[in-house]
Amino acid sequence: MYTVKVRDHIMIAHSLKNEVFGPAQNLHGSTYVVDAEFQSDILDEHNVVIDIGLASRLLKQVLVPINYQNLDEFEIFKDTLTTTEFIAYFVHQEIAKAMAGSFTGNLKITLGESHVAWASYEGRV
Amino acid sequence: MYTVKVRDHIMIAHSLKNEVFGPAQNLHGSTYVVDAEFQSDILDEHNVVIDIGLASRLLKQVLVPINYQNLDEFEIFKDTLTTTEFIAYFVHQEIAKAMAGSFTGNLKITLGESHVAWASYEGRV
Amino acid sequence: MYTVKVRDHIMIAHSLKNEVFGPAQNLHGSTYVVDAEFQSDILDEHNVVIDIGLASRLLKQVLVPINYQNLDEFEIFKDTLTTTEFIAYFVHQEIAKAMAGSFTGNLKITLGESHVAWASYEGRV
Amino acid sequence: MYTVKVRDHIMIAHSLKNEVFGPAQNLHGSTYVVDAEFQSDILDEHNVVIDIGLASRLLKQVLVPINYQNLDEFEIFKDTLTTTEFIAYFVHQEIAKAMAGSFTGNLKITLGESHVAWASYEGRV
Amino acid sequence: MYTVKVRDHIMIAHSLKNEVFGPAQNLHGSTYVVDAEFQSDILDEHNVVIDIGLASRLLKQVLVPINYQNLDEFEIFKDTLTTTEFIAYFVHQEIAKAMAGSFTGNLKITLGESHVAWASYEGRV
Amino acid sequence: MYTVKVRDHIMIAHSLKNEVFGPAQNLHGSTYVVDAEFQSDILDEHNVVIDIGLASRLLKQVLVPINYQNLDEFEIFKDTLTTTEFIAYFVHQEIAKAMAGSFTGNLKITLGESHVAWASYEGRV
Repeated sequence: MYTVKVRDHIMIAHSLKNEVFGPAQNLHGSTYVVDAEFQSDILDEHNVVIDIGLASRLLKQVLVPINYQNLDEFEIFKDTLTTTEFIAYFVHQEIAKAMAGSFTGNLKITLGESHVAWASYEGRV
Repeated sequence: MYTVKVRDHIMIAHSLKNEVFGPAQNLHGSTYVVDAEFQSDILDEHNVVIDIGLASRLLKQVLVPINYQNLDEFEIFKDTLTTTEFIAYFVHQEIAKAMAGSFTGNLKITLGESHVAWASYEGRV
Repeated sequence: MYTVKVRDHIMIAHSLKNEVFGPAQNLHGSTYVVDAEFQSDILDEHNVVIDIGLASRLLKQVLVPINYQNLDEFEIFKDTLTTTEFIAYFVHQEIAKAMAGSFTGNLKITLGESHVAWASYEGRV
Repeated sequence: MYTVKVRDHIMIAHSLKNEVFGPAQNLHGSTYVVDAEFQSDILDEHNVVIDIGLASRLLKQVLVPINYQNLDEFEIFKDTLTTTEFIAYFVHQEIAKAMAGSFTGNLKITLGESHVAWASYEGRV
Repeated sequence: MYTVKVRDHIMIAHSLKNEVFGPAQNLHGSTYVVDAEFQSDILDEHNVVIDIGLASRLLKQVLVPINYQNLDEFEIFKDTLTTTEFIAYFVHQEIAKAMAGSFTGNLKITLGESHVAWASYEGRV
Repeated sequence: MYTVKVRDHIMIAHSLKNEVFGPAQNLHGSTYVVDAEFQSDILDEHNVVIDIGLASRLLKQVLVPINYQNLDEFEIFKDTLTTTEFIAYFVHQEIAKAMAGSFTGNLKITLGESHVAWASYEGRV
């Protein structure tokens, strides 16, 4: 199996409104270093899993609308606990939509929120 | 599939008493940067794989008894080659015990012993 | 010259209310991976620049009040552009106060805001 | 499952002669930081997946012939687009040959071409 | 003293035509992860050393002409040993020119050529 | 000013026999990722601060005698608290001796003992 991974990042504010999150119930923020891994059993006729420029642009395109934002103010995240796991899933779904069939395989999105914590979601697209 | 990863570290002494290990037969030591990855197909009602604070505490709790120790002096490691692979397995088993059913899924423990070498063990818990 | 460096991190929300900051004028957030470097020409009688446990506790103690917070709501930051440079300076000043003479030398505070951007402040304490 | 990972690197020149690669059609170059992960369900009698010294030597042995070279001048790469994915596959095949049965399991080769891009190939050996 | 650091990268081919360089006399290549550190004793009225967007654009602007190129073919590098130290110096000089007085202070350029080797040049601009 | 940095590592056991060190009074161990930075105002006739191969060999040569060892058993470290700061100083002095005049400038030795702690020593050689 082949994998291509590209990296970008976002800087967002949010709060996790449930007492299980302790101090993270406060409005605070995070840099997420976002890795997108595209996995496929085969290479295309140009010996790539996916054009790396395209992969980077797709990732950027999906991140722009939430970058430099307060996620608490998004209608689509209303009543949603925007944990790192959830945002990884959200980015995964948005990339799947943006690719519109230009890639078939496994996609893994990993968000590094600090030098000691990460979360990811992976699934077929 | 969702994954949450947390990082901690230990600093131990040990020796690998078999000639295949060359100079590592000597009493020497290692910093192990320990990554614990918890993997699950679903999120709980708070949109997490496992509470990240709980994950960090479980990892710390398991590492404390071996941190700043000489593994050669542990009765449980008597006649055991405490390779990086083995310690990854040991940490995995100890976390599984410590969780006592509070997490079900896949657990991967990775030990970084330097900037050029790592070992890991993963399995269901 | 000797240096000891310890690392911790914070996750904060803030906005930079000046048009030169473009999208960062929005309320957004950041993880800052914070490095504190203590520099001295000599070691003490225990062959250290500063007790590394003390250094870590001082850093943690200074970071706790701003961790998981929205800096825009702090009276002390009112009308202040809380750039990464400024927060590095703020952490520097707070550590200097917290040490209350227990360390004399150069102190450098570096904040990593992503995998591609950092800011720091250094000066005598 | 157990995994052992070792790291080395090469510095090569090449060009990707197809218009889909844009500026990478030019003769340019890359440092590839190469990770070789050996995965096995069991440990051997010395509690290792593979002797880490042997793993490092095998990786080095396979990298030497292409290190400090222009891949465009290799007969074996004639008419081949030497993408990062392809070189990961090539290193995988060469290590499989070099091991000649001394390891059975999964082998994953990952090439880091910068701080923001990676490619890998994995398969049974 | 305040410092701001931004990171980018280039992928170039070159050869070092002197026998002291051993195998690096061959045409080969390198990824250089390029860090530009801007250092100043004071912050401007917006609490920054230099606008981080401007810093990133200046670095990118200087790197584009040599990115994806074979340095051996540049007239300006004719009869020059394009070592990592030299390229760090070259990037430093080009950024100094590109800034045209918009920043006064110390500038340090560091090129990471692998996970185990770096070179840098710093000086007033 | 120019700098060249090379990286290697050692894995040692030791104990810090003074109560200020808490649990580190036990025999334990550490991986030290060792960075050697050679700094000079000028380049030589081959456009380098120091031949990078020579720098790597000098560093390796100095590290071999203490690698895979228990520092508590060294006569030269008898009654010495082998803190990270001290070992950085020791490596610095040994490299200075080993170079025997083949390099004049500043030398900085940094030891990373984990992902959250480092110590260094620098001085003229």
